[in-house]
Amino acid sequence: MTYCLGILVNDGLVLAADSRTNAGVDQIALVKKLSLFDGMMDRTIALMSAGNLATTQSVTTLLEQALGSGAPNDLYAAGSMFDVARIVGDTLRAEVAREGDYVAPFGSPDGSFIVAGQIEAGPHRLFQIYSAGNFIEATQDTPFLQIGETKYGKPILDRVISHKTDLDSACKCALLSMDATIRSNLSVAPPIHLLRYESGSLSATNHRRIADDDTYFNSVRKAYAQGLRRLFNRIPNPTWG
Amino acid sequence: MTYCLGILVNDGLVLAADSRTNAGVDQIALVKKLSLFDGMMDRTIALMSAGNLATTQSVTTLLEQALGSGAPNDLYAAGSMFDVARIVGDTLRAEVAREGDYVAPFGSPDGSFIVAGQIEAGPHRLFQIYSAGNFIEATQDTPFLQIGETKYGKPILDRVISHKTDLDSACKCALLSMDATIRSNLSVAPPIHLLRYESGSLSATNHRRIADDDTYFNSVRKAYAQGLRRLFNRIPNPTWG
Repeated sequence: MTYCLGILVNDGLVLAADSRTNAGVDQIALVKKLSLFDGMMDRTIALMSAGNLATTQSVTTLLEQALGSGAPNDLYAAGSMFDVARIVGDTLRAEVAREGDYVAPFGSPDGSFIVAGQIEAGPHRLFQIYSAGNFIEATQDTPFLQIGETKYGKPILDRVISHKTDLDSACKCALLSMDATIRSNLSVAPPIHLLRYESGSLSATNHRRIADDDTYFNSVRKAYAQGLRRLFNRIPNPTWG
Repeated sequence: MTYCLGILVNDGLVLAADSRTNAGVDQIALVKKLSLFDGMMDRTIALMSAGNLATTQSVTTLLEQALGSGAPNDLYAAGSMFDVARIVGDTLRAEVAREGDYVAPFGSPDGSFIVAGQIEAGPHRLFQIYSAGNFIEATQDTPFLQIGETKYGKPILDRVISHKTDLDSACKCALLSMDATIRSNLSVAPPIHLLRYESGSLSATNHRRIADDDTYFNSVRKAYAQGLRRLFNRIPNPTWG
């Protein structure tokens, strides 16, 4: 399983992805699900993927191979983040069409992506690409998008995130959303790859790999777990006995 | 959708069920998903259901019709809670077999149940019945079982519930688990039916219907929402800017 989360706030973007991939329960590996396309000064583009790993790796590789080629699927030639989302969607659609019939007897060939970034003076934007190749975009009212194992980590986001949330708080909330998912689903696991993207920076250097022994991650997990138990105990019990 | 939750603690059982049922998004109704079989002094049995409403209502009705008949599916004649779970599983299995082929073209005929209760001097027990009619039982290490829309409400249970949790705290936690699910999924809604069963009481009188305007439920929701935001803000932000 996989959990990838993208948050769109006024100040920028926060992306977070776990690293677990598995085919059944006995073939388990760690894979980086966050890919950065950051070789040009005029844009930063990031992709996160969930679903069939063969499908999503092929899509990412095809897009990497096309970089700088000037071909229609060259992300470095795309005029807007909308065009980037279109290219990713079209590539995914073509890949599922190419492999689908062969893969289907063994399992779903489907994959999905979160696409985020900024090009030149355009706004920073966040999209979720379905396996059919179509996509939706995050808005002020819907400031986060998730793929993979999305549900366990949603309640904390629903309670905390708005488009006004500052970037550091959004990073902290992304880690807590990951933590909730990791606690409830064995097949989601660190290291977490996290990108903190400040709007206008056009740089993905603020990217880190957060392992199981990360000091900040563990301090957040512990403070939240203890605080939540204290909060729970402080709320009066019903008197229904 | 539906969310039903059963908690097994040393002191007894807490069962909670929402009331929303829907066929698509335009045929939505409220249905009570918690049924009590409490007409005998020597036992208390409770059922909660999720899935195809025609299937689960038929199962519940068949079991109600057989009460006191002495037939093999008479829950008042069952010798143990294990036997009760078997009867519910067998009835569900037969109902899915009877209806399945006719219903499948229109949607899944599947249903599932949570079965809980106590008979005479036996222990209070909690089971989850799958649509296939087989079932699992809650244990000290796995003190809660869920059916329906289970994921949003699981993190708070994972953090709070153990077999040592007292009954009042378990009631409070069940309401918070419901609250998380209601916030994240429109198709789960109050009133919540909640049973607080004290081991050895052999009585289901401590059963209440908690509507949207319930004073205690709203005070818990509000205190938790505010406390969680305060807790989140109190945890130091990362210094990754």
